[in-house]
Amino acid sequence: MQTVTVDLGARGYAVRIGRELLGAPAELLPWVTGAQACVVTDEHIAPLYLDALREALAGKQVLTHILPPGEEHKNLRRANDIFSKLLAVPCDRQVTVIALGGGVVGDLAGFVAACYQRGVPFIQIPTTLLAQVDSSVGGKTAVNHALGKNMIGAFHQPRRVLADLGTLDTLDARQFAAGLAEVIKYGVIADREFFIWLENNLPRVVARETDALEFVVQRACVNKANIVARDEREQDARALLNLGHTFAHAIETGLGYGKWLHGEAVSTGMVMAAHLSTALGKMEAAEGARVAELLAAANLPTGKFRGLTPRRMLDLMRVDKKSRAGQLRLVLPNGIGAAELTADYPPAVLRKTIAEFAVA
Amino acid sequence: MQTVTVDLGARGYAVRIGRELLGAPAELLPWVTGAQACVVTDEHIAPLYLDALREALAGKQVLTHILPPGEEHKNLRRANDIFSKLLAVPCDRQVTVIALGGGVVGDLAGFVAACYQRGVPFIQIPTTLLAQVDSSVGGKTAVNHALGKNMIGAFHQPRRVLADLGTLDTLDARQFAAGLAEVIKYGVIADREFFIWLENNLPRVVARETDALEFVVQRACVNKANIVARDEREQDARALLNLGHTFAHAIETGLGYGKWLHGEAVSTGMVMAAHLSTALGKMEAAEGARVAELLAAANLPTGKFRGLTPRRMLDLMRVDKKSRAGQLRLVLPNGIGAAELTADYPPAVLRKTIAEFAVA
Repeated sequence: MQTVTVDLGARGYAVRIGRELLGAPAELLPWVTGAQACVVTDEHIAPLYLDALREALAGKQVLTHILPPGEEHKNLRRANDIFSKLLAVPCDRQVTVIALGGGVVGDLAGFVAACYQRGVPFIQIPTTLLAQVDSSVGGKTAVNHALGKNMIGAFHQPRRVLADLGTLDTLDARQFAAGLAEVIKYGVIADREFFIWLENNLPRVVARETDALEFVVQRACVNKANIVARDEREQDARALLNLGHTFAHAIETGLGYGKWLHGEAVSTGMVMAAHLSTALGKMEAAEGARVAELLAAANLPTGKFRGLTPRRMLDLMRVDKKSRAGQLRLVLPNGIGAAELTADYPPAVLRKTIAEFAVA
Repeated sequence: MQTVTVDLGARGYAVRIGRELLGAPAELLPWVTGAQACVVTDEHIAPLYLDALREALAGKQVLTHILPPGEEHKNLRRANDIFSKLLAVPCDRQVTVIALGGGVVGDLAGFVAACYQRGVPFIQIPTTLLAQVDSSVGGKTAVNHALGKNMIGAFHQPRRVLADLGTLDTLDARQFAAGLAEVIKYGVIADREFFIWLENNLPRVVARETDALEFVVQRACVNKANIVARDEREQDARALLNLGHTFAHAIETGLGYGKWLHGEAVSTGMVMAAHLSTALGKMEAAEGARVAELLAAANLPTGKFRGLTPRRMLDLMRVDKKSRAGQLRLVLPNGIGAAELTADYPPAVLRKTIAEFAVA
């Protein structure tokens, strides 16, 4: 069992990492301070873990909301369905919203918790590797808009995060690989030692050995917690967590939410960022190749993809939240273990990188 | 010219109160830090002040969004229309959302500013008395839901509030009176001296004499700023600002948004709260009568109303954000100049008060 603390003063909280957390009342009940809880989950996860969670919540009035799975449901309309359900009870301002699921469930439930009666308590129980290492830590919540991913949202920190490694046992290989994209990201932007460990231990991780998984989730969460504690609302340092994401969001929006998993798009996006860094002389070609190789070894896409013209891809990238006065700012690796947010690149070089990957 | 400071540390800001603020670039431009601004207003206000505001924003890329007037448009769908417009440009995270209008425009535009890209800068230019003395100060933003008023929202402080008294010249008598309800409220909950001043000077206020108006807006904002600085997120003290509002929200929701003005419902709600306080022995009958008399002198409704059964009214009141574990907590005056938030009243006495006012 590991505990990672996210140090945000009055909004600080602990991420618990280990097995058999999900059904343990002692891990949950002290952080459900009101009489009511609303569990938001999806059709894949509900049959697996909802009963155990309900048992752990014995004594509380428990509401459940089960979403169809997939990024295409992370929108305002689905959020409003949950508001309607909360108001029909009615749930008061002490209700705890609990997200049981992957990043989509966490982002949507977190947005509901941020906005219901101007904010109610929130707990994350991430059940995918991606959610455990990334989206459930740091308080970013959001829904998508047809014109841009995660464009409507709020910063709303959870009171507790329970990363139950047992939930990863049933994760399909594609979802598991998608999570590894965000894991590898921490190595590239801030933790060269971790990157090298991953190069040497990837087979143990892919085989989901408990020790390896616990280390990976803990190390990823420590990296994220450090960055979030320095910059909760993404004024500067936190933007580095977006390595590959400007490319990725354009791929996800352009191809239609739900076609690619977020982690798959991030994998391709990181390779594109490394490609651009190399072209700009910020990164040695050999280091860029190591990033692509590790992602490929994790069964992630790293090459060309179909369905977007380079022009459309660039247009979609401009909507990015890091854009400023029409200038697209990108997170670019400076070798493995360091990265920077910059608008200082010739547009032609960016266009060339995009054209190497995006094939209409 | 008056300046009231809302002391919230890094989120603190100034409320400027006076004439000819709206068209003055020096009052506005220093707080519009990005290259883009989005002015949200409504069909009544746009013809009066939008041109002047656009001129004051010379040099910025200015987007406008004009809403149909009325509380019934303060909903998620209308918020999404604005998100779509911002994304179509696209506007970046430095865009300043400017609310030009009354409480509905301010609440909706504030909610959009709170959620667009997880929060962008926001400026309030309230053009009704109600918005100048209440809704534009304190950072509460919200949209309505069919099942409850202001149930979806966020705390998002403006960077600046420009309360231009000139905009009150064109306000119709009904809107002006609605604002006075919130003005009188400050006297009842916290400022007996102000209440007495209002009893003695109401004709000058109703005649909209500039000196009297400036004093009223400034005194109301000082009262509100003091309470908000003590309790930004409504853990305790701030709830007192809700005197009459639990009754009022039920009236507004039950009769349909837009039928009564918010201030009209608050007026009746305050009389109901005073009635209940008197019945509970918390307030002398003579003091309760003074509250009703001052509201009536301001041309506000203070008596029975049609269209809601007492039973339905009570059900609607239970959805209130101050409810806890099914218990309805009410703000009740303890005489003029003091109030408390309490759940300590016999339900039968509340039912009796409701039955005296709500007539099916």
